[in-house]
Amino acid sequence: MINPFFKNCGPFRFSELLKIIKLENAKFQHDIEVLDIKDLISSNKNEITFYHSKKYKDAANKTKASFCLTYDSLKNDLPKKCVPLIVENVLFSISLLTAKFYPSSVDDKFDNTAKLIDETVHKNRVQFGKNVLIGENVSIGENCSIGHNSIIEKNVKIGSNCSIGSNVIIRNCLIQNNIKILDNCVIGKHGFGFFPNKDNNLRYPHIGIVVIEDNCEIGCGSTIDRGSMSNTVIGKNTYLDNQIHIAHNVKIGKNSIIAGQVGIAGSSVLGENVKIGGQAGISGHLKIGNNVEIGGGSGVIKDIPDNSKVMGYPAKNFRDFLKENR
Amino acid sequence: MINPFFKNCGPFRFSELLKIIKLENAKFQHDIEVLDIKDLISSNKNEITFYHSKKYKDAANKTKASFCLTYDSLKNDLPKKCVPLIVENVLFSISLLTAKFYPSSVDDKFDNTAKLIDETVHKNRVQFGKNVLIGENVSIGENCSIGHNSIIEKNVKIGSNCSIGSNVIIRNCLIQNNIKILDNCVIGKHGFGFFPNKDNNLRYPHIGIVVIEDNCEIGCGSTIDRGSMSNTVIGKNTYLDNQIHIAHNVKIGKNSIIAGQVGIAGSSVLGENVKIGGQAGISGHLKIGNNVEIGGGSGVIKDIPDNSKVMGYPAKNFRDFLKENR
Amino acid sequence: MINPFFKNCGPFRFSELLKIIKLENAKFQHDIEVLDIKDLISSNKNEITFYHSKKYKDAANKTKASFCLTYDSLKNDLPKKCVPLIVENVLFSISLLTAKFYPSSVDDKFDNTAKLIDETVHKNRVQFGKNVLIGENVSIGENCSIGHNSIIEKNVKIGSNCSIGSNVIIRNCLIQNNIKILDNCVIGKHGFGFFPNKDNNLRYPHIGIVVIEDNCEIGCGSTIDRGSMSNTVIGKNTYLDNQIHIAHNVKIGKNSIIAGQVGIAGSSVLGENVKIGGQAGISGHLKIGNNVEIGGGSGVIKDIPDNSKVMGYPAKNFRDFLKENR
Repeated sequence: MINPFFKNCGPFRFSELLKIIKLENAKFQHDIEVLDIKDLISSNKNEITFYHSKKYKDAANKTKASFCLTYDSLKNDLPKKCVPLIVENVLFSISLLTAKFYPSSVDDKFDNTAKLIDETVHKNRVQFGKNVLIGENVSIGENCSIGHNSIIEKNVKIGSNCSIGSNVIIRNCLIQNNIKILDNCVIGKHGFGFFPNKDNNLRYPHIGIVVIEDNCEIGCGSTIDRGSMSNTVIGKNTYLDNQIHIAHNVKIGKNSIIAGQVGIAGSSVLGENVKIGGQAGISGHLKIGNNVEIGGGSGVIKDIPDNSKVMGYPAKNFRDFLKENR
Repeated sequence: MINPFFKNCGPFRFSELLKIIKLENAKFQHDIEVLDIKDLISSNKNEITFYHSKKYKDAANKTKASFCLTYDSLKNDLPKKCVPLIVENVLFSISLLTAKFYPSSVDDKFDNTAKLIDETVHKNRVQFGKNVLIGENVSIGENCSIGHNSIIEKNVKIGSNCSIGSNVIIRNCLIQNNIKILDNCVIGKHGFGFFPNKDNNLRYPHIGIVVIEDNCEIGCGSTIDRGSMSNTVIGKNTYLDNQIHIAHNVKIGKNSIIAGQVGIAGSSVLGENVKIGGQAGISGHLKIGNNVEIGGGSGVIKDIPDNSKVMGYPAKNFRDFLKENR
Repeated sequence: MINPFFKNCGPFRFSELLKIIKLENAKFQHDIEVLDIKDLISSNKNEITFYHSKKYKDAANKTKASFCLTYDSLKNDLPKKCVPLIVENVLFSISLLTAKFYPSSVDDKFDNTAKLIDETVHKNRVQFGKNVLIGENVSIGENCSIGHNSIIEKNVKIGSNCSIGSNVIIRNCLIQNNIKILDNCVIGKHGFGFFPNKDNNLRYPHIGIVVIEDNCEIGCGSTIDRGSMSNTVIGKNTYLDNQIHIAHNVKIGKNSIIAGQVGIAGSSVLGENVKIGGQAGISGHLKIGNNVEIGGGSGVIKDIPDNSKVMGYPAKNFRDFLKENR
């Protein structure tokens, strides 16, 4: 749970947090100040965490958090020093508390702090087009250019030798060095994450950011959403073609090549040196190994081991696909 | 046939209209003023309508229109008070007449009436970014925000508590309350509708609008086209992810969830509480029932009944899809 | 190899070029000035060309180039007057030399020569919106309109009666007459072409342009990349719907209709009167005949002969597709 950009509005009194998750009538012995909200691994004393699936049992065993939102059936996996807070829906409750600590991560209104670059410290260091806007808490390295009408909203760090195209919108994003972001991209908005709710869905906070590592290129009209509880990461020297959609929490390894109109759903993790043909789609929460090749138009709905070549919908071994479709 | 925004340039003399559809030599007894052009159900006395398929026989029986473009084979379905106008191609002829009544609905040039918001009455009521443009005949409710470089072209009504992102373009659109429209959307342009014609296709008019009901969210880079003879509708509390394309006349029911890069072709109607996975496509003129789930990547080419779960290309029962692809 | 827009920085001494392709130690008898770099057919005396596949043997036999990058196995197909330059990777070497002759074709930074249209000669002849930018070497015909925030970067020729929407970005493009380009398109950026290279891919130059012929319409949010060594061409009266991606070197014949979200990969050539349903994809380097119909959602991975109707993934005869999926 890394939040270099979103402001932690805590600490909050434990009793205040209990009201939010409707546990105000539960009996607890203390009413200390709770400092922060993090995942099982990152959290520390006087912080709150959450544990909602046996998949994370090992991390739960070792968490240093003082409090943990969880289910009755899971509470025994927690260390004795960690107080279990039994709720009906862990993800819903963590969402409410995250919104309390990080209210600015819920809403994605346009950044009204953004100013014309001429009115900022960046004007002498960056090559820029007409009508370029820069928000607060933005840093930009040496030898960068930003095209016409582009908006670098608040909470963006750009390294050196980066070229941002025109009509680009970036927020909550860490962009390393030698990176090209082509025209019309939108990078760093919140993901498509919410709790469906009759007549009025409840959005959950996105406190992750987008990290784009050295030497990447992002094609025109692509969208890369920031993470909810972890970051969205595009690995070093990975190239994305036009009109690609990368959902929240996705991680793509280095040296990968992704052709036009590909979509990768939330929380999937791709290895290094992955090649994906045009219009392929990858479902959420999957693990794609290193050196995997995915044929154009494929629909990947299960994990793919290292060094595989797949194609089809659903994607299968490439030779089998060819054989069946001779 | 609802046209709250397009100006009716009628009435026109009946004889003038006959020339346009090459019936000037046909003998009719009267040359009255024709007031408007509408569909079978909405039209009234001294108005013109059209009837081109047996599918609409019931409506044809009851139409109150004084004139009806139709085929010889269908004319007997019309009431006696309705004068049939027999043409070679009903849709082509109705297109010509609609263009006569509503010329501004044919062309989709940029709105040159749009002014900087600072120069309009909206400047004190809306939170807005740099370079925001507002056209004529635009109303905006309480507590709305409009991001940088966005263009609200003419003929747009926005309710209260709406948040419009940056680089958004909206025209001919009715946006209700508590709606979020994210960056880079284009909403309300004419649909992809025209008569193919050697070396120079003929565009037909689009006099419908886009209606977005309360509590919806529309993801980045999505396009929603306005209707041709009826409206395009996004139902209450329906959420669209990024890079979605909704074609003209599509109607989506309330509480639906549509993942990234989905495309819905013209005139399809979706029920309530529909869930669609990423990159799925739905062909035109289909009926998708309530509570339908459509798996990611599916290609839907026929109607889907209520409460079904489908996947595949072409989409079929979900269990069958899984079984066949084990 | 047509380069009306990119400036040839040659001539260069032959010995200088040899160093670039690591042939400085090879013995050649002359050190003349080399004028240009072109394909086998277009090149002339004192120019350099390349020959990397038997597929082009006929052209190689007849080339008038004085020098030719090639492989040892192919060199005997060249005329005696043409000096073979044997390299390890012809495409990589031609890429290096093209970058030498046409350095401005490698980089696609925003055009910092672009000025507000009010400050250019176009202001009295074009109907334009707010914040329209025009680069160097742009010509615009009679009766054209350009929407708000659109950027016509350098090296664009627009004919008469063209309507460009808002937020459009165009560069290196020849737009003929009566053409509509709708909002948010990006046309003429370099294609997705590079040599993968550990930790730092090498982009190759794109010296082709985009040609859009008379009476075309390009839908919102579409991207059309310019060619690498030849042009990308959209034939007369061809209509593209929204969110379409056309990759480098693609050629589409006249009177074609392409529905939303279609993607066509690099170097494929489509005939006339082709109809493609929504979300279909066409792999690279294919030949699609005249009067071909491709169903929505299809994935085309091999050539399609004239007058065929196909559907499926992979695309097959339409009747077979229906039969298998009853």
